[in-house]
Amino acid sequence: MATHRIAVIAGDGIGNEVMPEGLRVMQAAARRFNIDLQFTTMEWANCDYYLEHGQMMPSDWYAQLKDFDAIYFGAVGWPDKVPDHISLWGSLLKFRREFDEYVNLRPVRLMPGVPCPLANKKPGDIDFYVVRENTEGEYSSVGGRMFEGTERETVLQESVFTRKGVDRILKYAFELAQSRPKKHLTSATKSNGIAISMPYWDERVETMAPQFPEVRWDKYHIDILAARFVLSPERFDVVVASNLFGDILSDLGPACTGTIAIAPSANINPERTFPSVFEPVHGSAPDIYGQNIANPIGMIWSGAMMLDFLGNGDANYTAAHDAVLRAIEQVLEHGPRTPDMGGSASTTEMGMAVAALL
Amino acid sequence: MATHRIAVIAGDGIGNEVMPEGLRVMQAAARRFNIDLQFTTMEWANCDYYLEHGQMMPSDWYAQLKDFDAIYFGAVGWPDKVPDHISLWGSLLKFRREFDEYVNLRPVRLMPGVPCPLANKKPGDIDFYVVRENTEGEYSSVGGRMFEGTERETVLQESVFTRKGVDRILKYAFELAQSRPKKHLTSATKSNGIAISMPYWDERVETMAPQFPEVRWDKYHIDILAARFVLSPERFDVVVASNLFGDILSDLGPACTGTIAIAPSANINPERTFPSVFEPVHGSAPDIYGQNIANPIGMIWSGAMMLDFLGNGDANYTAAHDAVLRAIEQVLEHGPRTPDMGGSASTTEMGMAVAALL
Ligand SMILES: CC(C)[C@H](C(=O)O)[C@@H](O)C(=O)O
Ligand SMILES: CC(C)[C@H](C(=O)O)[C@@H](O)C(=O)O
Repeated sequence: MATHRIAVIAGDGIGNEVMPEGLRVMQAAARRFNIDLQFTTMEWANCDYYLEHGQMMPSDWYAQLKDFDAIYFGAVGWPDKVPDHISLWGSLLKFRREFDEYVNLRPVRLMPGVPCPLANKKPGDIDFYVVRENTEGEYSSVGGRMFEGTERETVLQESVFTRKGVDRILKYAFELAQSRPKKHLTSATKSNGIAISMPYWDERVETMAPQFPEVRWDKYHIDILAARFVLSPERFDVVVASNLFGDILSDLGPACTGTIAIAPSANINPERTFPSVFEPVHGSAPDIYGQNIANPIGMIWSGAMMLDFLGNGDANYTAAHDAVLRAIEQVLEHGPRTPDMGGSASTTEMGMAVAALL
Repeated sequence: MATHRIAVIAGDGIGNEVMPEGLRVMQAAARRFNIDLQFTTMEWANCDYYLEHGQMMPSDWYAQLKDFDAIYFGAVGWPDKVPDHISLWGSLLKFRREFDEYVNLRPVRLMPGVPCPLANKKPGDIDFYVVRENTEGEYSSVGGRMFEGTERETVLQESVFTRKGVDRILKYAFELAQSRPKKHLTSATKSNGIAISMPYWDERVETMAPQFPEVRWDKYHIDILAARFVLSPERFDVVVASNLFGDILSDLGPACTGTIAIAPSANINPERTFPSVFEPVHGSAPDIYGQNIANPIGMIWSGAMMLDFLGNGDANYTAAHDAVLRAIEQVLEHGPRTPDMGGSASTTEMGMAVAALL
C-alpha cells in the first residue's frame, strides 16, 4: 500500500476552522478504504507568520514542500494585517506557478438541500466543470508606473500568454470534455475587446479542435458567458478559460448553485512532477473567524478531489471520492447545517456528521 | 427651442430591426414633449460596408460625426463576415475612445412583467447602476507576439490605466452615488491577482473617497462581486468598474434581472465636447436577424437615456425620459411581447405599442 505524503497548510481565518474538519473526513475515508495518508502540518503561509518574519513562508519553502504528493490548503489572506496582493503572491500564487499547477479544476454542481438562487432549478440540472488556466495570463506582476505621483501617472499591466501555457490547458479541457457523456466544450474569450491576447486564445482553440473530432465546442465572450451562467447554466459541460476569466466563472458558477462555501477546487500539476494543491474556493473570511460557524464542505469536497487525484485512476480511490461526495450530499440534504445554510450547527458538528457517514 | 442633431447608425443584424422602433418612440416622445430632434441616418459602420470598402467607416467619419449632439446606435458585428475585433475596433470602440466617451452608464433594474431568473425577487428589488470606464484599461490593442509560429510563441497584452482615466470615472461614480438616496458605491477590483494595475485602482479610490464624506463605499474582487450580483443584488446602488470588469458586470447585472435584450446603455462624454453614443447592451444577434422578432426595448430605453442626456437637467426632458420608461413598463407588463419574453409579437408591434402609449 502506497503512502501518500500530504502537507497541510491551514492559512488564515476560517482556513483554521475548516481544515480540522477536512482532516477528520480524510482520516475517516482513509480508514474505511484502507488508504495510507500521512499528514504534515506547516505553521507558515499565513499573515501572522508574515507579521513576524516579513515574508509569508520560510525561504526554503520550495525544498520543504516539493516532495509531497499533495498540499491540502485552507485559505490565505487577512487584508487588515497584510495587503492581499502580498499575502497571496507570497503563498498560494507561488505554489500555482512554481509547482506548475497549470490546471485549476472547479466543479460546479447543484447539490441536494442547497437552496438555489436561480428560480426553478433542481439538483442535477447544473453539473459542469470550469477548467481554469492557473499560471499565466492576466495574473501577472509585470508592469509598472511612469510619471509616478503626477497628473500624467500611467500604469502598465502586462498579461502574458504563451503557446505552451495556452495549449496545455486547452488540451486538458478537450480531453476532459471527451471523457464526459455530453462531450461539449465552451471557450471563454473576449477577442472583440482585448485585441492581442484573446484573438490568440481563439486561434489556439481552433487549431486544437480538429484533434478532438468528437467534442462539440463553442466560444462566448466573457460578458455574455457570465450572463448565460445565470440564464441557462444547464447547457454547460466543460468551460475552459484564462486565469482571470476562470477565476470569475468559478466563483459565479458556484454562486449560481447556491453558495461558494461548498465549492472545491484542485490546482493540478498533471505530470505529477510537483505536488498539487487542493483548496476550497472560498477565502479566509476574517469577518466570521473565531465563531466556529464556517461551512466546512468546500474544504471536505476539496479533500475528496485530492483522494481521486492521488488514486490516479485506481478504483478504490474513486470509490473513496464518491463515498465522501455521497456523505456530503446526505449532510447537505438532512443537516446538520451551518448558519450560512440556514442551520445552527457549528463547523465541527457539520464536519463530524460527514465523517460519521463514512 | 433647441434643435438636437442626432446621427443614426443601425449597424448590423438586429440593429436594423430595433432601430426603427427606437426612432418611432423617440419621434412620439418628441411630439408629445415638444422636443426638436433631427435625425441623420448613416449607412456605414456595418460589416457589409466593410466588405465593400475594406474599412468599417469612411475615412472622414470623425468630421462627419463630431458636431452631432448624440449618436443613436444599434449594434455592430457579424463574425461570419468580419472578425469581431475588426468590426468593433473599427466602429463602436473608435467612438468611445476618439469622442472621449469615458463613462459607460448602464442601469440594472428589475422591471415589471419580466420573469426574473433569480428566485423570490420582485420589481424594485434590484435597481442600481454600473458605471464603467470606457476608454482605457484592459481594452487595448497594445502588445504583440514574439517567437511567432514556434513552440516558444509568447503573446504580450498591455492594459493601460492613467491617473486621468481612473480619477475621472471614479469622480463620476462618486457623484452619482452622492446624488442617490442610498449614497453607496462599490468598487470592482482584483488587486489580489492582477498585481500592478488593480492595486493602483484601489489606491485612487481611497484617495478620492474623503472628498465624498457622505458616500459609504466598499470594494470587492471581481470574482466574488460577480457571485454577489447573483446572491444579493439588492445591496448595490452604484458599482464602478474598469473597462473589462464593467463590461462583464453590465451583462451579468441585466441577466440577473431577466434579460439583456431590454438593457440600455449610454456612452457619455460628460463635457459634451463630443457626441455621446446611446446603444442597447445586446449585440447584433445574426442568428435571429431577418425575422422581425428582436426585442426593441433595449434600443428604446437607450433612447430614453438620450433624451435625459440632451435635456441636461431640463425638467421637460426628464419628464420625456420618465414617460418613455413608464410606457416601456406598461408594455413589459401587459404586452405585446416578443418571443424572447414568451410572447408572439413582432419587433414592430412591440415598438408601436410603446409609441402608442406616449
Ligand atoms: C461588442 C463589444 C466590444 C462591447 C464591449 O465589450 O465593450 C460590448 O460587449 C459592450 O458591452 O458594449
Ligand atoms: C485569492 C485569489 C488570489 C485567488 C485567485 O484569484 O486566483 C482566488 O480568488 C481563487 O480563485 O483561488
